[in-house]
Amino acid sequence: MKKLWGGRFTKAADKLAEGFTASIGFDRRLWHQDIRGSIAHARMLGRQGILRAEEVEAIVRALEEIAREIEDGTFPFRQEYEDIHLNIEKRLIEKIGPVGGKLHTARSRNDQVVTDVHLYVKEEVAAIRGLIRDLQAVILDRASGETGTIMPGYTHLQRAQPVLLAHHLLAYFWMLERDDGRFADCARRADVSPLGAGALAGTTFPIDRHVTAADLGFSAVYENSIDAVSDRDFIVEFLAAAAICQMHLSRLGEELVNWSSAEFGFVEMDDAFATGSSIMPQKKNPDVAELLRGKAGRVYGDLVALLTVLKGLPLAYHTDLQEDKERLFDAADTLKASLAVAAGMLATLRFRRDRMREAVRRDYSNATDLADYLARKGLPFREAHEVTGRIVLYAIERGKYLGELSLEEYRQFSDRIGEDLYAALTPEAVVEGRASYGGTAPAEVARQLEKARAILAAKNSGQTQGGSDTKTEDDRPVPRRR
Amino acid sequence: MKKLWGGRFTKAADKLAEGFTASIGFDRRLWHQDIRGSIAHARMLGRQGILRAEEVEAIVRALEEIAREIEDGTFPFRQEYEDIHLNIEKRLIEKIGPVGGKLHTARSRNDQVVTDVHLYVKEEVAAIRGLIRDLQAVILDRASGETGTIMPGYTHLQRAQPVLLAHHLLAYFWMLERDDGRFADCARRADVSPLGAGALAGTTFPIDRHVTAADLGFSAVYENSIDAVSDRDFIVEFLAAAAICQMHLSRLGEELVNWSSAEFGFVEMDDAFATGSSIMPQKKNPDVAELLRGKAGRVYGDLVALLTVLKGLPLAYHTDLQEDKERLFDAADTLKASLAVAAGMLATLRFRRDRMREAVRRDYSNATDLADYLARKGLPFREAHEVTGRIVLYAIERGKYLGELSLEEYRQFSDRIGEDLYAALTPEAVVEGRASYGGTAPAEVARQLEKARAILAAKNSGQTQGGSDTKTEDDRPVPRRR
Amino acid sequence: MKKLWGGRFTKAADKLAEGFTASIGFDRRLWHQDIRGSIAHARMLGRQGILRAEEVEAIVRALEEIAREIEDGTFPFRQEYEDIHLNIEKRLIEKIGPVGGKLHTARSRNDQVVTDVHLYVKEEVAAIRGLIRDLQAVILDRASGETGTIMPGYTHLQRAQPVLLAHHLLAYFWMLERDDGRFADCARRADVSPLGAGALAGTTFPIDRHVTAADLGFSAVYENSIDAVSDRDFIVEFLAAAAICQMHLSRLGEELVNWSSAEFGFVEMDDAFATGSSIMPQKKNPDVAELLRGKAGRVYGDLVALLTVLKGLPLAYHTDLQEDKERLFDAADTLKASLAVAAGMLATLRFRRDRMREAVRRDYSNATDLADYLARKGLPFREAHEVTGRIVLYAIERGKYLGELSLEEYRQFSDRIGEDLYAALTPEAVVEGRASYGGTAPAEVARQLEKARAILAAKNSGQTQGGSDTKTEDDRPVPRRR
Amino acid sequence: MKKLWGGRFTKAADKLAEGFTASIGFDRRLWHQDIRGSIAHARMLGRQGILRAEEVEAIVRALEEIAREIEDGTFPFRQEYEDIHLNIEKRLIEKIGPVGGKLHTARSRNDQVVTDVHLYVKEEVAAIRGLIRDLQAVILDRASGETGTIMPGYTHLQRAQPVLLAHHLLAYFWMLERDDGRFADCARRADVSPLGAGALAGTTFPIDRHVTAADLGFSAVYENSIDAVSDRDFIVEFLAAAAICQMHLSRLGEELVNWSSAEFGFVEMDDAFATGSSIMPQKKNPDVAELLRGKAGRVYGDLVALLTVLKGLPLAYHTDLQEDKERLFDAADTLKASLAVAAGMLATLRFRRDRMREAVRRDYSNATDLADYLARKGLPFREAHEVTGRIVLYAIERGKYLGELSLEEYRQFSDRIGEDLYAALTPEAVVEGRASYGGTAPAEVARQLEKARAILAAKNSGQTQGGSDTKTEDDRPVPRRR
Repeated sequence: MKKLWGGRFTKAADKLAEGFTASIGFDRRLWHQDIRGSIAHARMLGRQGILRAEEVEAIVRALEEIAREIEDGTFPFRQEYEDIHLNIEKRLIEKIGPVGGKLHTARSRNDQVVTDVHLYVKEEVAAIRGLIRDLQAVILDRASGETGTIMPGYTHLQRAQPVLLAHHLLAYFWMLERDDGRFADCARRADVSPLGAGALAGTTFPIDRHVTAADLGFSAVYENSIDAVSDRDFIVEFLAAAAICQMHLSRLGEELVNWSSAEFGFVEMDDAFATGSSIMPQKKNPDVAELLRGKAGRVYGDLVALLTVLKGLPLAYHTDLQEDKERLFDAADTLKASLAVAAGMLATLRFRRDRMREAVRRDYSNATDLADYLARKGLPFREAHEVTGRIVLYAIERGKYLGELSLEEYRQFSDRIGEDLYAALTPEAVVEGRASYGGTAPAEVARQLEKARAILAAKNSGQTQGGSDTKTEDDRPVPRRR
Repeated sequence: MKKLWGGRFTKAADKLAEGFTASIGFDRRLWHQDIRGSIAHARMLGRQGILRAEEVEAIVRALEEIAREIEDGTFPFRQEYEDIHLNIEKRLIEKIGPVGGKLHTARSRNDQVVTDVHLYVKEEVAAIRGLIRDLQAVILDRASGETGTIMPGYTHLQRAQPVLLAHHLLAYFWMLERDDGRFADCARRADVSPLGAGALAGTTFPIDRHVTAADLGFSAVYENSIDAVSDRDFIVEFLAAAAICQMHLSRLGEELVNWSSAEFGFVEMDDAFATGSSIMPQKKNPDVAELLRGKAGRVYGDLVALLTVLKGLPLAYHTDLQEDKERLFDAADTLKASLAVAAGMLATLRFRRDRMREAVRRDYSNATDLADYLARKGLPFREAHEVTGRIVLYAIERGKYLGELSLEEYRQFSDRIGEDLYAALTPEAVVEGRASYGGTAPAEVARQLEKARAILAAKNSGQTQGGSDTKTEDDRPVPRRR
Repeated sequence: MKKLWGGRFTKAADKLAEGFTASIGFDRRLWHQDIRGSIAHARMLGRQGILRAEEVEAIVRALEEIAREIEDGTFPFRQEYEDIHLNIEKRLIEKIGPVGGKLHTARSRNDQVVTDVHLYVKEEVAAIRGLIRDLQAVILDRASGETGTIMPGYTHLQRAQPVLLAHHLLAYFWMLERDDGRFADCARRADVSPLGAGALAGTTFPIDRHVTAADLGFSAVYENSIDAVSDRDFIVEFLAAAAICQMHLSRLGEELVNWSSAEFGFVEMDDAFATGSSIMPQKKNPDVAELLRGKAGRVYGDLVALLTVLKGLPLAYHTDLQEDKERLFDAADTLKASLAVAAGMLATLRFRRDRMREAVRRDYSNATDLADYLARKGLPFREAHEVTGRIVLYAIERGKYLGELSLEEYRQFSDRIGEDLYAALTPEAVVEGRASYGGTAPAEVARQLEKARAILAAKNSGQTQGGSDTKTEDDRPVPRRR
Repeated sequence: MKKLWGGRFTKAADKLAEGFTASIGFDRRLWHQDIRGSIAHARMLGRQGILRAEEVEAIVRALEEIAREIEDGTFPFRQEYEDIHLNIEKRLIEKIGPVGGKLHTARSRNDQVVTDVHLYVKEEVAAIRGLIRDLQAVILDRASGETGTIMPGYTHLQRAQPVLLAHHLLAYFWMLERDDGRFADCARRADVSPLGAGALAGTTFPIDRHVTAADLGFSAVYENSIDAVSDRDFIVEFLAAAAICQMHLSRLGEELVNWSSAEFGFVEMDDAFATGSSIMPQKKNPDVAELLRGKAGRVYGDLVALLTVLKGLPLAYHTDLQEDKERLFDAADTLKASLAVAAGMLATLRFRRDRMREAVRRDYSNATDLADYLARKGLPFREAHEVTGRIVLYAIERGKYLGELSLEEYRQFSDRIGEDLYAALTPEAVVEGRASYGGTAPAEVARQLEKARAILAAKNSGQTQGGSDTKTEDDRPVPRRR
């Protein structure tokens, strides 16, 4: 019987399968880590007497040459050599002959690949933590400039109580501080060397894994060789931390899109961070803020992708694991770009204090304070609330705000009300009153700013390692507050 | 106070934001669709008297030139022009001057972009359906060759009942047939033209949207201009169909990985679809099957990404929507490559019939048939089951299979048992017995093969449109079977 | 060496494992489908001579009794019988003795379970499509009442061009119409009977699968018994359709939350669909709209959950598949409740036409129309745009809108401008002008309403089956429009 | 015009919306945390002079009564009171009159709810860490018993190199150790009190948040009140840690399903952790292992659900956040049940050492060691590899394993081969040779066991807090190894 599908599969098979399984298209990004890892491995082989000193020297020199070739763009990447590891090894042998083949002694691609990824994750975490710090600095700076700006505070996107703009901005400082902690913890768990685990069972050569680990800056080595080549937890953890951080940026993005609308009108994007319209000079699309929001999708997707790959995967190495890299690269690139552009956008944003001030004077979010006033004047609490409800209803029906009712009108509801009420109902007084720890009162916000500055200063001076060691919240043993 | 973050943000801002928001890096893939769309639009403008005939001619000629430039690799892509649409428009104006600017009359990037994506999705669906058909043809062909091969059928990865290998393979045929239907339905819903919806509200020009739609091969136009520019359902639906199809391939991949193991030993990959080892010639890693399994992750991730982007997004166009393209491209590329390589791998796979036959003779999966034998000999059903249980236990304790017990031994359990039992317990007899519709009996599998062949033949002759129109299952009004 | 973990595991094992694997806690919801399936199976067994007529009668009568017990709440559910299927079977045997055991002849739990789920999905799709229709009816009704209401149309949440509120609302009609189509397609693919596939290989009994299929209202039977018990595609497809529909509701929820804010002030929730505050009578939290938005999360999660379960799962039945039900129930319940409450909320919502009208008069979204005016007066298009830009800038600097500039001021920019400009710039004129097919002009919206009404009327009269057969978009062969 | 949708929505609205928004159906699980939080709050109000001592006493006594009512099942849960918080508060007022209403002074549901969830997460983490420890203890115990069992080690599910079963099992010990660290870090970040943040801005009452924090066992308080009520990071982090841990269990589940197959035959489930078949006594379905694998889906889904909810959500509290609880409960319940049942299953599993031993003797996974033998005898490395390849091919063609070739046959390939080769090729020798740190040599596995025991002993004695403080990997400053 004639085959329905013809004979073309066998003929074309090689190319198809080669393209499908080759990773050189994306893992070439790990060339630097790969060469670092190989140099450390070669030196250790020398130290342990497995290679001769002159062999090590030849290998290291050639690897350094290869690094320069890649930097120069003269390195001949070839898909038929599958991945970055083989591309480099083949080139090494081209350069120095059979001795190049000795580099792979006591090593397998299984431990080599994942060593590269560990190094990469550690570097990316460092870069991301730097960018988080930069963004925190911008937030701190902008908050410092807005300690006198009162805006509506929202719950359910309904105006609830007035707050300082500085207070609202600082909420993002603390969100980012937790992100920083998660990345620090992630880096700590990634900071373990799998090199020397071999294909899965270790090696018969008298290697010293602690030496390569120390040389590459790892703090520890995997205790179990099978675990070492099977583990991709540290990437999932990185992706989860990135997803949470990107989620924070999506919340910021949403708020800035809202605030940029004609209806809110609380901010104006700098021209550099918006696109305009030739015909409507007032129009500015907050593209950057929109993308900050939208890019949460891709990082969530990256996380789901790797979790899916790992679900139900037996130990030890499987080619499925090759799918880890592109998702990792995508998430790291996306988050770094997002953090950087968020900092730039925030730094150049114009806050429209006039609009915020006006908004806060034109609502009933000081009603709680009217009730509190009555309670301070001796009216039982529950009664105070009830009276307030009636007053607000009265005001709304007349299209007035609470500050606009006359004393006479107020007296119809309670004769305890005096002239001093008006002072108590100003946005300034209302904000001032919320002086509980972490509240929006200027003094509390000043304390918060101080603390945030101290945290940032400590980070900048490198005094802290961050992560769980950095107490991101008030770290006293929580006894009484002075 | 000196700013903590320095003045660098404003300076670097332009470049940062430009790189963050530009899409030319990936949407250049839509150049072909974009030019098709523009030509159709220009022609319609001419027909409606909005542009003059010579203007239309100049524009069309220049767009065709641009198409050739892109094909030749001589087109100057420029990031400062953000996306493929502006890059082409700017080039058009370079070529023919101000008249090039008239192309954008009565059009907005909002409707233009999504028109391109509709065209792209329709084309990709067609390509994918072709590849599904190819893979079905391979399955059919391989199944046709294995109608005499009996293998263990599994539930819970435990041997349950013997089945024909052809029967097992055909299960994938029907899974793919459903995939085909989903893609056809997806294409039908994507087959609607948004062109002419403008920014969101339509246009004041006397355009004719049905003309451009027909010119571009669309079957319908969006009824509502706001919906037209906001809708990305058709991409989510594409991604969901792709995720399900890729999930099917992951099930196939898992089975082939299992079957390639020394323990199962049911298949041997062709050298072109596996990687070997210089030192262990018998070793073959089923890389392709592993990647078929692993790549489900990335398509799932693509689906989650776009669903996330769309969650809670107000109408109409937002820049968040720009995040749709890379996920779409990635899923389409992944699925196409996976289908193609799966076909190649299956076509060249060697089934180890000896191993399957041996496996099937060395288990107790014919126990049900022993019970059925006893029932046919008049033993009440429940009793037959109980006796069978005792016989199997007896056999296991003695390390024998059911076919290896002597008639004497059998008679200890029931004197109804005769020599004819042995024939009833052969894998051949066991398989033969399961002749219910869709069962594994050779006659039923032959019927199934016939039906599958007819479906494929109809597709190849283009008689069906597929999708919900293609009855993928038995489509009679389900009365009696003859 | 003493065991670190003591002997407690063996002791507690039974209970632990039993609780872990039992599904009766959730699959009891399928009791109705299970009994329907069993009755159909029993009748077919009788018809085929596998059971005697009186056996069938006894079984059917007892099953009907059991149905009443479950409805009455007197049925004794027992966890030790694992699932709903065994619970019913055990009860059947309690009632009618050993003959009850014959019901399971020629059936396996593998085909029985999934038959129940097919029936359930078909019923839920019918219910959901009814609720979609109800919500569409509400939208249509509200849109019909707002054909004279002009509001700002947004892109990037920036005011872009004025639109009719009816036009904006109708966008959701068409989104739901696509949802309806997806559910119809999903139901069609679910409408296939797996009953009779046995454990995986079919059965040796002379059953007739087409008879049970017809009895249960299925249009087709699975062609392949292994596929029949392994397939959960139809549930994934249901979940994907539900995720997209819930995504639509999340977009609606977001818009209503925005519109409920003091800043937009476009809608006011009915008291029944919001929570108030005793102290601030004006305050209404749009809880329902918020939850419509938030509940997208759980349906997305349900979809991811099942896709994950199926990734890399070998054929045929595995206990992993038991994880399908709770996700399916959760998604169906969530979507049904969301659709119903969305209809109620929309039906009772108050549109604040005054606020919308005011908003539309206080922006520059008629700038495009100023340019069009100039162009109509003979100014070359590009020049018209440029002049408009300068005029808008001039107006903004003076804090005026375009309608507020004097003719004198206009003449400084172009002497082609006359008194008739003012009429051209009113929101009414601007909206009127966008008369392209699907545009926001009242005549077009009226056409759209008419079409939507016809679709709904056809559905209500049951003339269409929906799905891909319902042309949700303009279905003429797309030639010229009149 | 008559409304299409009738007037039914308004009538049914109350009930519909009430059911849609009520959370009492699931948040009743937080009753214990809610009462704890309320007692701490009441006591602080007394201490600060906001409530009188006798008021505090009455409130606390009544709350304790309510706790007993809930435990007894006599508490009247009422849906019209929406959630657990209002249900308790209403009951409190029923019991002690208006003074009960004072409990809510200086508190909002926004900070109250999330305080409860913080307490819950901390408790669940403690429970989960205990279960992880139990499972680690079982692994350690089983590994200790299998230090003499050699089995095939796999990559790509192909036999690669023999390993100790103890070694393979211990890989899971280290995976769980990382899980433990992630949960510890998560708990540390959850260990911050939001109580006192009020609705979003703090309160005007002179509360002391550090006092309630200390009373409730929190180590810190939120610095920013807006952040305090908006933050759900700690739940996402919990879900991410749970997803990774459940992923580990899915890998274990997959391996045990594979190993339970007739083909592998490496393990036999205890009857309590499998379901059998009355007719095939040898058949055991590894249901528990299958569900361990499948349940990864639901925890992944829970994670995606909450990430979706939070995407693009503005500050501060929104009702969307109510969707956090069910996902959290589901993930915590699933993971706890999975860990417990995994421990029970592993503890009672029978390892079929005979099958493993046989497997290891019947493959070519000692080929690497043949090459090493030749290299040690002086053959250049590359040549040794090549010769080995030829020998293996020769053996395969003759259907022999390497240990079965005669010395004569070996000598045809190299005269360096002597009788001592046979000893070098035994699985025991092969395993012995992989003595690099973390390798599979018995001495190394003994070291690993020792280290694991020390970690567990430290945890049991409570000496460590776990998390990032617990060095899960070799924690020396990584210099030389002795």
